[in-house]
Amino acid sequence: MNYFSSQFKLGILGGGQLGKMLLNVTRKFDITTHVLDANEEAPCRIACNQFTKGDLMDFETVYNFGKQVDVLTFEIENVNVDALEKLEKEGIKVYPSSRNLRVIQNKAKQKLFYLDHNLPTSNFSRFAYASEIEDAVLNGGLEFPFVRKSAQFGYDGNGVKVVRSLADLKGLPPGECIAEALIDFKNELAVIVARSLNGEIKTYPVVEMEFHPEANQVEYVICPARISAEVAKKAQEVALQVSQAFNHVGLLAVELFQTKNDDILINEVAPRPHNSGHQTIEASYTSQFEQHIRAILNLPLGQTENKVGGIMVNLVGAEGYTGDVIYENIAEIMKMEGVTPHIYGKKQTRPFRKMGHVTIVHEDLNTARQIAEDVKNTIKVISK
Amino acid sequence: MNYFSSQFKLGILGGGQLGKMLLNVTRKFDITTHVLDANEEAPCRIACNQFTKGDLMDFETVYNFGKQVDVLTFEIENVNVDALEKLEKEGIKVYPSSRNLRVIQNKAKQKLFYLDHNLPTSNFSRFAYASEIEDAVLNGGLEFPFVRKSAQFGYDGNGVKVVRSLADLKGLPPGECIAEALIDFKNELAVIVARSLNGEIKTYPVVEMEFHPEANQVEYVICPARISAEVAKKAQEVALQVSQAFNHVGLLAVELFQTKNDDILINEVAPRPHNSGHQTIEASYTSQFEQHIRAILNLPLGQTENKVGGIMVNLVGAEGYTGDVIYENIAEIMKMEGVTPHIYGKKQTRPFRKMGHVTIVHEDLNTARQIAEDVKNTIKVISK
Repeated sequence: MNYFSSQFKLGILGGGQLGKMLLNVTRKFDITTHVLDANEEAPCRIACNQFTKGDLMDFETVYNFGKQVDVLTFEIENVNVDALEKLEKEGIKVYPSSRNLRVIQNKAKQKLFYLDHNLPTSNFSRFAYASEIEDAVLNGGLEFPFVRKSAQFGYDGNGVKVVRSLADLKGLPPGECIAEALIDFKNELAVIVARSLNGEIKTYPVVEMEFHPEANQVEYVICPARISAEVAKKAQEVALQVSQAFNHVGLLAVELFQTKNDDILINEVAPRPHNSGHQTIEASYTSQFEQHIRAILNLPLGQTENKVGGIMVNLVGAEGYTGDVIYENIAEIMKMEGVTPHIYGKKQTRPFRKMGHVTIVHEDLNTARQIAEDVKNTIKVISK
Repeated sequence: MNYFSSQFKLGILGGGQLGKMLLNVTRKFDITTHVLDANEEAPCRIACNQFTKGDLMDFETVYNFGKQVDVLTFEIENVNVDALEKLEKEGIKVYPSSRNLRVIQNKAKQKLFYLDHNLPTSNFSRFAYASEIEDAVLNGGLEFPFVRKSAQFGYDGNGVKVVRSLADLKGLPPGECIAEALIDFKNELAVIVARSLNGEIKTYPVVEMEFHPEANQVEYVICPARISAEVAKKAQEVALQVSQAFNHVGLLAVELFQTKNDDILINEVAPRPHNSGHQTIEASYTSQFEQHIRAILNLPLGQTENKVGGIMVNLVGAEGYTGDVIYENIAEIMKMEGVTPHIYGKKQTRPFRKMGHVTIVHEDLNTARQIAEDVKNTIKVISK
């Protein structure tokens, strides 16, 4: 198929920041794009060829949107997967597949998938209702501490909580959930694996993540991770095993724990460009966004090595500010060496909302890390 | 002024490929943009916030467009400069200024500007009508060979011809022109200088250009130029002198000749992102497009060093093909190391039309140069 022709149409479900960064690539390659999102003011509203307002969870909306395009992808997992399945049956190419999305959308199914494929992950129990957790604790079937995760519709740490006592269970959402053993880890790592339709596979360097303690959102992503070559190799191998099990098309971001014993356990995966890969825009030979487009269009994959070291800092709304956003001191950080801000274009800020990210690149990763801290201490996402 | 707010509006005159690459930056920073272009199918039609169809040479059109924005810039020199001057008087910020554009728009004025500022350039004569050239030759006032250039509306080598005999003068455009001494040069070089409103100045590394012999368009841009440190230093110094003379805001691309004696002569300048700077997107810490936006918005300038070596190959329409464009073997070049195609989105090809460019980056510049040749020999811009 000739992708570089206006006859070809790529559909993207979701018009948020990930979609926006995908559109930079489709613009570069002049690939025609249609985007569906419920928010008329979504970051993708401009830069796609056609924007459609509609509910990503509604069967008819997703189905009708998908029927207009040749290849359909998504930038968010919370889409109507039944519609994707019907579209696949009717000949629309959907990458990643509805089969994989169904597994990944539900954290309980995802964990079972790892068990079924002998992939290393933490122990867990599945509960159809939140109330069952309390029963399990009281009957001695579950011990504190554990991590409670909603099975469905978790995003950016929503629905995830470390539970250390019965009191922590109060006020949690009612639906299906899992309780995972709390891993005593040294590092949270991630590896992005790209796989194209014809089976070409490339992995990005292992990255190291630091999470914000309260919001459970990534605060720094450090590429390459400051770990030993053996641990990096093991992380890459596990990521490739996961990739092989899913047999996916497109990106698969594999989040991993490096335990105190240097074991590698799978935390979770995302079948799309991922927060842990934003620094690839400036640091890598091929950005994760370009790689996703190359993979789903069955084009040759690009190199995944770093040109220089890269650090990513999320720009999240400061606590205590809700309303029309202001990026305080943005010019100050633009003075710093190797600093590039990315502003997603959301007009309203609220505490911990992802409003953008900043990449810091430098030949020397330690210098980059120092600058990243300066960036973090300088810019502030507030409201008028 | 808060540029990162939807109250602020940046206007861009011209909606071609340079504008399109500027829009990638305004999208990244979420800066609101309005674009004016005569072609409804211009590459900038999408990705700007508001597209206006209109004639860039028409006073009223440019004036009315400019009145809606806070800062006005252009991606092409052929715009109505009287309208820009009126807008400046009425408080719209126009960068680069109408004063500079008036000088640069006219090659005779540009050459006189260099003379007035004691800047090194080749000898030349100015003629109000093409017929005066023949008189000058017959009267011994002008000797073969020389380069004849139209004073106005030259673009991508249009209106430029090497004249070696009276026969070569036949069929040339009638208007104002200059005749320049034909420089026996070793290299054509270029230096892009960025200057922001508050006077911060940064220069990019010197690049080396190879022109297509027939079309007089750049074929390869090599960054950094493979020249001695002394010649590079001299080229940078001359470029900075030109920058100082213009006292411009935004980018100034300075095209230079390195003579057989290693003298540096100014060929011409462009007050905007330039073909000789496209490789900065992948090779430099800061792309020329981001730098132009930083400069005209008085933001701190970014670093101009290369991360890795960069080569740029123009993708021009192959001879013998006119019509709906096809990029033959584009997937083949995407297999090659460090190769990124940029497709401008023009739907129709014709011989020598600029349809895109390809960047090749590599730690080793000689390897990049080899791959660039493979790219050139593989991809072909043809029609259906």
